[in-house]
Amino acid sequence: MTTLRIDAIVQGLHAARNEWRASQSRPREPESREFPSPDAVGEAIDALRKALFPMRLGPPDLRQENEDYYVGHTLDAALHTLLCQARLELRYGGVPAVEVHERATELIRSFAEGLPDIRRLLDSDVLAAYEGDPAARSVDEVLLCYPGVLAMIHHRLAHSLYRLGLPLLGRIAAEQAHSRTGIDIHPGARIGGHFFIDHGTGVVIGETAVIGERVRIYQAVTLGARRFPKNADGTLAKGLKRHPTVEDDVVIYAGATVLGDVTLGQGASIGGNVWLTHDVPAGGSVTQASSVS
Amino acid sequence: MTTLRIDAIVQGLHAARNEWRASQSRPREPESREFPSPDAVGEAIDALRKALFPMRLGPPDLRQENEDYYVGHTLDAALHTLLCQARLELRYGGVPAVEVHERATELIRSFAEGLPDIRRLLDSDVLAAYEGDPAARSVDEVLLCYPGVLAMIHHRLAHSLYRLGLPLLGRIAAEQAHSRTGIDIHPGARIGGHFFIDHGTGVVIGETAVIGERVRIYQAVTLGARRFPKNADGTLAKGLKRHPTVEDDVVIYAGATVLGDVTLGQGASIGGNVWLTHDVPAGGSVTQASSVS
Amino acid sequence: MTTLRIDAIVQGLHAARNEWRASQSRPREPESREFPSPDAVGEAIDALRKALFPMRLGPPDLRQENEDYYVGHTLDAALHTLLCQARLELRYGGVPAVEVHERATELIRSFAEGLPDIRRLLDSDVLAAYEGDPAARSVDEVLLCYPGVLAMIHHRLAHSLYRLGLPLLGRIAAEQAHSRTGIDIHPGARIGGHFFIDHGTGVVIGETAVIGERVRIYQAVTLGARRFPKNADGTLAKGLKRHPTVEDDVVIYAGATVLGDVTLGQGASIGGNVWLTHDVPAGGSVTQASSVS
Amino acid sequence: MTTLRIDAIVQGLHAARNEWRASQSRPREPESREFPSPDAVGEAIDALRKALFPMRLGPPDLRQENEDYYVGHTLDAALHTLLCQARLELRYGGVPAVEVHERATELIRSFAEGLPDIRRLLDSDVLAAYEGDPAARSVDEVLLCYPGVLAMIHHRLAHSLYRLGLPLLGRIAAEQAHSRTGIDIHPGARIGGHFFIDHGTGVVIGETAVIGERVRIYQAVTLGARRFPKNADGTLAKGLKRHPTVEDDVVIYAGATVLGDVTLGQGASIGGNVWLTHDVPAGGSVTQASSVS
Amino acid sequence: MTTLRIDAIVQGLHAARNEWRASQSRPREPESREFPSPDAVGEAIDALRKALFPMRLGPPDLRQENEDYYVGHTLDAALHTLLCQARLELRYGGVPAVEVHERATELIRSFAEGLPDIRRLLDSDVLAAYEGDPAARSVDEVLLCYPGVLAMIHHRLAHSLYRLGLPLLGRIAAEQAHSRTGIDIHPGARIGGHFFIDHGTGVVIGETAVIGERVRIYQAVTLGARRFPKNADGTLAKGLKRHPTVEDDVVIYAGATVLGDVTLGQGASIGGNVWLTHDVPAGGSVTQASSVS
Amino acid sequence: MTTLRIDAIVQGLHAARNEWRASQSRPREPESREFPSPDAVGEAIDALRKALFPMRLGPPDLRQENEDYYVGHTLDAALHTLLCQARLELRYGGVPAVEVHERATELIRSFAEGLPDIRRLLDSDVLAAYEGDPAARSVDEVLLCYPGVLAMIHHRLAHSLYRLGLPLLGRIAAEQAHSRTGIDIHPGARIGGHFFIDHGTGVVIGETAVIGERVRIYQAVTLGARRFPKNADGTLAKGLKRHPTVEDDVVIYAGATVLGDVTLGQGASIGGNVWLTHDVPAGGSVTQASSVS
Repeated sequence: MTTLRIDAIVQGLHAARNEWRASQSRPREPESREFPSPDAVGEAIDALRKALFPMRLGPPDLRQENEDYYVGHTLDAALHTLLCQARLELRYGGVPAVEVHERATELIRSFAEGLPDIRRLLDSDVLAAYEGDPAARSVDEVLLCYPGVLAMIHHRLAHSLYRLGLPLLGRIAAEQAHSRTGIDIHPGARIGGHFFIDHGTGVVIGETAVIGERVRIYQAVTLGARRFPKNADGTLAKGLKRHPTVEDDVVIYAGATVLGDVTLGQGASIGGNVWLTHDVPAGGSVTQASSVS
Repeated sequence: MTTLRIDAIVQGLHAARNEWRASQSRPREPESREFPSPDAVGEAIDALRKALFPMRLGPPDLRQENEDYYVGHTLDAALHTLLCQARLELRYGGVPAVEVHERATELIRSFAEGLPDIRRLLDSDVLAAYEGDPAARSVDEVLLCYPGVLAMIHHRLAHSLYRLGLPLLGRIAAEQAHSRTGIDIHPGARIGGHFFIDHGTGVVIGETAVIGERVRIYQAVTLGARRFPKNADGTLAKGLKRHPTVEDDVVIYAGATVLGDVTLGQGASIGGNVWLTHDVPAGGSVTQASSVS
Repeated sequence: MTTLRIDAIVQGLHAARNEWRASQSRPREPESREFPSPDAVGEAIDALRKALFPMRLGPPDLRQENEDYYVGHTLDAALHTLLCQARLELRYGGVPAVEVHERATELIRSFAEGLPDIRRLLDSDVLAAYEGDPAARSVDEVLLCYPGVLAMIHHRLAHSLYRLGLPLLGRIAAEQAHSRTGIDIHPGARIGGHFFIDHGTGVVIGETAVIGERVRIYQAVTLGARRFPKNADGTLAKGLKRHPTVEDDVVIYAGATVLGDVTLGQGASIGGNVWLTHDVPAGGSVTQASSVS
Repeated sequence: MTTLRIDAIVQGLHAARNEWRASQSRPREPESREFPSPDAVGEAIDALRKALFPMRLGPPDLRQENEDYYVGHTLDAALHTLLCQARLELRYGGVPAVEVHERATELIRSFAEGLPDIRRLLDSDVLAAYEGDPAARSVDEVLLCYPGVLAMIHHRLAHSLYRLGLPLLGRIAAEQAHSRTGIDIHPGARIGGHFFIDHGTGVVIGETAVIGERVRIYQAVTLGARRFPKNADGTLAKGLKRHPTVEDDVVIYAGATVLGDVTLGQGASIGGNVWLTHDVPAGGSVTQASSVS
Repeated sequence: MTTLRIDAIVQGLHAARNEWRASQSRPREPESREFPSPDAVGEAIDALRKALFPMRLGPPDLRQENEDYYVGHTLDAALHTLLCQARLELRYGGVPAVEVHERATELIRSFAEGLPDIRRLLDSDVLAAYEGDPAARSVDEVLLCYPGVLAMIHHRLAHSLYRLGLPLLGRIAAEQAHSRTGIDIHPGARIGGHFFIDHGTGVVIGETAVIGERVRIYQAVTLGARRFPKNADGTLAKGLKRHPTVEDDVVIYAGATVLGDVTLGQGASIGGNVWLTHDVPAGGSVTQASSVS
Repeated sequence: MTTLRIDAIVQGLHAARNEWRASQSRPREPESREFPSPDAVGEAIDALRKALFPMRLGPPDLRQENEDYYVGHTLDAALHTLLCQARLELRYGGVPAVEVHERATELIRSFAEGLPDIRRLLDSDVLAAYEGDPAARSVDEVLLCYPGVLAMIHHRLAHSLYRLGLPLLGRIAAEQAHSRTGIDIHPGARIGGHFFIDHGTGVVIGETAVIGERVRIYQAVTLGARRFPKNADGTLAKGLKRHPTVEDDVVIYAGATVLGDVTLGQGASIGGNVWLTHDVPAGGSVTQASSVS
């Protein structure tokens, strides 16, 4: 099929790549892959999800008496995959080659040590969903079916990676959940126990959001940034606290938008579709001013 | 890699699981899997989708003269998978072991007998999409590409399972569509023919919603519950009608939120982004009171 | 398991298919598949994505010195798959059998020739995302993780197919991105360079929308149609310009809805949740009239 | 890894291929694949094996009441794969392009019509193995486990293809069995019913061998050619009868070698390791002249 | 492609199956699969091979510190697969349904308990190969590459199944090795430690053969039966000792054939291609009487 | 299923492994895999086979105009896989860690440079088969179907690895062919061009065999060692020339056994089943002394 002229297109794409690399001052011939692989991270997170809940999310023929073997073998493989990816991220982030292995090992060890506590937090999320949704028939239905729970499994793992200094791995894990659930939680967000997201599609929670215990939110809720302060040179200032703080026992109904570094006090209730850019006191309740006529 | 100390993490996770099981009064050593498998149910639903529309969603090299062989073999495998999963759900729901097989067989037989009518309903949904979207070029494009149609294939199967007493299987089938389309329809919702969801991301339709014939809704529409009545003991009351009733020929535009057991009368039109918690009479039209200036 | 009576269901489904085919005046025994296969198109688009960005989205063990081999082989396979599917679409669209092959080859050749420019446009989108999001750490994180970038890779390929006269292939490519990202861009939409969609879930961009350079939009933004003019016979008029025109440097914040063939002038800023059905002048700024109290 | 110099090797291999093509007077740019694909033929034969014995060699969860659906769907796919491959073989063999499709269809239709009789012959082979081996516990063990039976399933299909004028497809099917069993039967060999090969490794049966009913042979038996007559120009004469004829009820023990167009008369018995190049009368018995001392 | 007339072939095959079932007095509608599945048994044996030698035959990224997790999880899955298949064999063999589960569990438990001793025997075989072949560079090369070792792993597992009363499972495991190596050892054969088969293609060892310690055999050696005694009714007498006994330290060179219930005394040496049907005393040496001139 | 007592078996196998490791003086905790992986080597060899013959053994939809892209990409991946495995072999063989990478790169570079010549030799083997077998219809049938050709592709690659100092990789490649064809050629054997093995099952060619041009051999031919000289300490002497030298144009018929460091002179003919342990002069002919009566 000479008519497709593959050669010309290969050359055209080659030129386009070279333009990009020149514009980004990329080295000419890197030894090999420079970035973590989303596929590899994704597989490791999927495996960890099964290791955290072996009898419900693991292989269908698992038997409880032998679940530790399954957990141990699955952890071994998943953690070593993460270790490789962590090395790539550290290297990419400028850590000297000779230090990369040791630093990555330390980080993944800390990550691994946190897994039992992550499981406990996730159990509290499952309970919160069961108690908060009249359509939920059992805690097991919640774990097997609720997208909000899937998103939180990813988030609690992603946040742990983020806090340890592996934000790119965390981001990859988070986007995987975003794709499957429509729930977009930045791995930087700090979220307390017993957290429940119902339905979930369209939820956005920003990098510097802080959420307390027993908070409940519904689909399409945004905890976002209001504006992006710029540096003197006109570039965006990165790293500032620019998202809301949500205290314990707050409820935020569907479609509400809360922007900026505001605080929703303990037990506050934010109505559906509300657009909010200021603090709400503890116990306060906000609803749309102009209801529909 | 001794430094990852897998042993300690395996023990930590073991302890966390035991805490959970104790808190949930779980039996120590169940024989094996106690719950239906989302993967198994998902595969069966995927197969049924192909058996319902063999020439368009089935294997690319299928020939019409032999499609019954394909349909028969695919049904045989899919229905027996569902039968196994139905047994697990019944057992999980407390049906005595000796009755499980017969009850499950009865249910899946009824489910199977309903498939031709489900196909007819879905054909009417495809027509509704074709007629309702100026961008649609053909009924086949609609079936191959529209997420709203994919969501309805899952819903009509999931609803059939739900009505027969297999709500967990139905829920799994529904969440599969939710993940792929961003459309979240509870399997309990009752939806008439010629139903069309355009774009669809963010749509939520609750468990006790009832929708008539020829209804059309757009992305991010919520047919939700307003509040959750509680029982005397403070737990949520489950099973009450708490979602809207939408009569024939209603149109609900993007982003509208309709909450509670209200009724939208025949032919009503609900504008975009409207927030609605009361009845609308037949032929009525609701738009946002305060338009943007 | 005689009790499932597969035979009766096979016959019931056979009858339902015949009713549909009769109602649609379908030929009795088409030779074989009449439509493009979403799976085949999806695989080709996935391959093109890797060929466009070989070192970052291609196989993990690729080496830069040999990437042209990878690119050439991947293009060869992907373009020939598209060629087959293009033939099916042309045939389905009524092109005479004897002309199909030549026409399809011409179209796919043109499509292929456009790939280097598509790569350049996508590089500009990656830069726009990096510059527009304070949470972005590097251009590579953006390419690997941002759903908005994934959606634009699909869109720029899908739009090229659409413009060349292969709208069904374009639609399939677009829906694939919609399913993974919750971002629903019709392949007909014309979008300039340096385009950035943040978060993205719930974004809808209609078929006749036109978007300039350096535009930025956030999650749940709709650029939709206001109403659907009908023909004299009551059917929908297809093909009219019915979606917004967005000029250079416009920003549209989360949840805003812009409907109809209106124009947002250069540099305009549209606030979150705004509902807009009229023009906005260059430099103009629109926010919700009634803020929350 | 610049040091591997892939470019030079690609060029070197390119040159080597051009030398070969020049030496073989091959066309410069054939449209695409010129030969049948062993993988495709192999899959079709594997599928036919399952369609011939659905409950024993088909999918483990097949139910007898629905086996016709399985058989029909499997045949449909396998026969159409063979049809494609038959076209390639006919084309390769010089059949004019315009006739290829019709001729191939005719041949595969005839092949298909012969399948029930092939099944009956194979049933007779299974019985022969059961009756002839004291270690056989049941006819089903024979079908599931005996390499001689696997080889005969392939042979009877391959021979049917060979006789119809598709010798290359037959050869591919035969080599597949040879690889799995060590039994090398040329697809041209004519073999009667109730044929039993025990153990089988090393058996070779040549193209023009003819074998009667109820023959039994053991491992490492060769029914080969003695010498290859040459044509006047020194090339080998092809197509002559050059292998043995074995009449009904003959037994040939392990390691015996029978060469040339000789006849083993009805009921003859050929001892282990015998080297034989002349006829044996009906009922005759041949053993090694010089026994071991 | 109406011309292939699939319907007629489906019916023809249906008729052929019914003839067979009638001739075999098979029940009309068995509930489901009646026989063990070669695929399932094959996968279990492959898994056991890896569990026996985890660092060399298991997954490439296994680490020694965690190999017990791998071993435990792999055993758990493989043994339960075998348990299912054992139930099918027992049921097929006439064990009453109510006893099947308990009997199968007992047998597989015994099988499992024997695995450590099987590993020790296989270690001795590996040593024997290393010491017996001048081309062997290391014990690890032997384990990774030698077909004789692969055949013995299968045989020692298959023989254990055979002795416990699961001869069909044993046979399936044995044929799997036969297909891969050309070495055909009946699972009934009793073989001592330090056994070495070099090259191996064409080796046949019969059901009632008994082989001592430190025996060495080469390719194409047969330890077979001489004749098959028949019962009064003309059927073959099954179960008699009809194959050789080979005492410790015997060597049998390539192509030798030893038939019948004869004894090769300790330390005997049997030359290549020898045909032997009588005892050989301890220390005896047999070579071909008539050497080649 | 407590009754299988997995724990005890895991411990038993652990103990057995420790015994082995102690007996072999293995290090307690190696970092990871110590040996090349047969699966990895096998995949690389399979890929090289396709890269050597892209239009016939490569992907079915390859087009000649783009075959260099396929060849380049396939070589790149396969050679780097071999490079990794070569490092493991060198390390295993005692090469100091700091030298391993450079040495492996050098070896694989040399291996790669030899591929075009290997292709030319294999073309000569294909011609030899076509010219030597009256049943061969075309050179392409020979390449697609003949096990002898498959064995030679593996051998010529394996021998190249062997000569470069990677005998374990060579052995793995050779055993892969042995398993598929029953032809067992040690990677050390030196074999000239235009070599043809017909049928092939049971052929054994030893490590120090040397074979000239245009040699033809048939099934079950052994070119083996006669006896194994021992060192003073009783262990086998490794590395001596102990297999035959076969000069140009020799033919060896089926089942012949040639043992020891003997020479078959140019043009000699060795009859079927002959057992030969001495030289044969050029042009000589050997047949079995005692024919069958």
